[in-house]
Amino acid sequence: MNVIVEAGANYVGVIGAGEGATGEQMVQARRVGELLARKGVRVVTGGLGGVMRAACEGAVGAGGVTLGLLPGSDRADGNQFLTVSVPTGLGEMRNALVVRSSEAIIAVGGSWGTLSEIALAVRTGVPVIALGGWPLPGVEVLVAQSPEEAVEAAVRTLAR
Amino acid sequence: MNVIVEAGANYVGVIGAGEGATGEQMVQARRVGELLARKGVRVVTGGLGGVMRAACEGAVGAGGVTLGLLPGSDRADGNQFLTVSVPTGLGEMRNALVVRSSEAIIAVGGSWGTLSEIALAVRTGVPVIALGGWPLPGVEVLVAQSPEEAVEAAVRTLAR
Amino acid sequence: MNVIVEAGANYVGVIGAGEGATGEQMVQARRVGELLARKGVRVVTGGLGGVMRAACEGAVGAGGVTLGLLPGSDRADGNQFLTVSVPTGLGEMRNALVVRSSEAIIAVGGSWGTLSEIALAVRTGVPVIALGGWPLPGVEVLVAQSPEEAVEAAVRTLAR
Amino acid sequence: MNVIVEAGANYVGVIGAGEGATGEQMVQARRVGELLARKGVRVVTGGLGGVMRAACEGAVGAGGVTLGLLPGSDRADGNQFLTVSVPTGLGEMRNALVVRSSEAIIAVGGSWGTLSEIALAVRTGVPVIALGGWPLPGVEVLVAQSPEEAVEAAVRTLAR
Repeated sequence: MNVIVEAGANYVGVIGAGEGATGEQMVQARRVGELLARKGVRVVTGGLGGVMRAACEGAVGAGGVTLGLLPGSDRADGNQFLTVSVPTGLGEMRNALVVRSSEAIIAVGGSWGTLSEIALAVRTGVPVIALGGWPLPGVEVLVAQSPEEAVEAAVRTLAR
Repeated sequence: MNVIVEAGANYVGVIGAGEGATGEQMVQARRVGELLARKGVRVVTGGLGGVMRAACEGAVGAGGVTLGLLPGSDRADGNQFLTVSVPTGLGEMRNALVVRSSEAIIAVGGSWGTLSEIALAVRTGVPVIALGGWPLPGVEVLVAQSPEEAVEAAVRTLAR
Repeated sequence: MNVIVEAGANYVGVIGAGEGATGEQMVQARRVGELLARKGVRVVTGGLGGVMRAACEGAVGAGGVTLGLLPGSDRADGNQFLTVSVPTGLGEMRNALVVRSSEAIIAVGGSWGTLSEIALAVRTGVPVIALGGWPLPGVEVLVAQSPEEAVEAAVRTLAR
Repeated sequence: MNVIVEAGANYVGVIGAGEGATGEQMVQARRVGELLARKGVRVVTGGLGGVMRAACEGAVGAGGVTLGLLPGSDRADGNQFLTVSVPTGLGEMRNALVVRSSEAIIAVGGSWGTLSEIALAVRTGVPVIALGGWPLPGVEVLVAQSPEEAVEAAVRTLAR
């Protein structure tokens, strides 16, 4: 029996800055990844550095499975904590694939790239939990105060 | 000689709500489309109703050329003011194509869908002019008070 | 009244080699574009050189409308006979957009790139007319002996 | 240490009919998946049934990792032997993602869908090994007589 194929596994996206992430955001992202993995949830990211890398590191360290949807067409651009990577070659358009592949999104910190994904998620009905980040122009995003709270909120939204 | 092929023509995107656009937004969008067309600028939209339709109507009424990048795969979903339509079948992912096809973006009003495109534009270096809409969490978007001001600002950003 | 917006206009794709097209293929493509334009049909291509350019030149010369779906993200790569261009940034993936945007496909000559589009068209139910080209491993492609015959066959397939 | 994240892992695509695959093709695909997994190569497929499912079953049974790039936007459409799935929502356009994600492609049997991917692979420089299938109009595809020979040929093409 192969334990890494779990029928009906859930996928949660973790988004945030690839460059310029703060130390606090990195710590939070790592913890979010770890907590998701412990719940058996796969972690979806854009596959690069910063928050994406930290979330994958946390997940893999806890025995989890990670999916990296890279913007470029070279798999070598992905961080080293990806179970599986997809070199989409879609550029920023791959953000929409991150959203499509996720049943809920946890946004760690904020940036214009993150905002694009948050807006797309809200627009397409994918629940968004914001951990840190900007004051957002609406109330459709759940705000969490800690990685624990963010993961709890995300897991509550999953259809099981 | 065919006047509708202009080497080096410029393309400006007009984005905004497809449903739920206010009367004022419709009037503004129509005027924006008209003014862009008068300057020989092609109008790019998501090809559907509301602000998209109004901008195209204004452009076509002034002899302009419009491009509609539809989310679905049925061309019949497009509004009747499209010179050329592309049934992308990409869903919301086509928002990224709207941004890629535009040298500048004018956002009329605001919604989560619009915010997604604004954020993507800022992220990829496409100038954004906001006409109405939400207070945005940053200063990277130019705010215009009228269609005239918005079109002036957009045209100033074009490389000629 | 603006003549370039025609509700219910039909779109036919013309595909073929961008580089290495023979002189005969260029002549045929130009004639195909011209004949399509005369019938009021818009011409869809990948927007680059060779057969794509020749088809657009023929269409525009006859007062037609052309759509170029470019693989790269730089509009300047398009040929000078495009009414509207879309710098998709999708690479070869844009071939699928060419097929989606076309109600029928005329393939002038053949190459691996062309074969990919032909196969995708057949797979998704878009009629394909082959003018010249390889012996194909199936009977699902109509073979035409001349541009006139190819355009006649394409037009017959259009839902009017 | 987590064994499922292997830096520099190789990915080989296995393509073929989702419906209408013959019993022989299913047996071959399962064996191809198994052999790839034994060599530590990840298996990329379109994630659905038929040849795709058989290749994944073979890989997972041998402890391998599989990636399914689904055409629709519902993860539940994927077969039960996917380590990770991506509900791309791209329709047939996802074939290009399968090719991009693969360093080599093994085609089991043939169909128009398969031909589209083969042609795209040849076009973009991804080696193709054909196991069974149509006589193809060119010599750029390696023809293998058995799953063993196909996997050997695919592995030889991988940059290590």
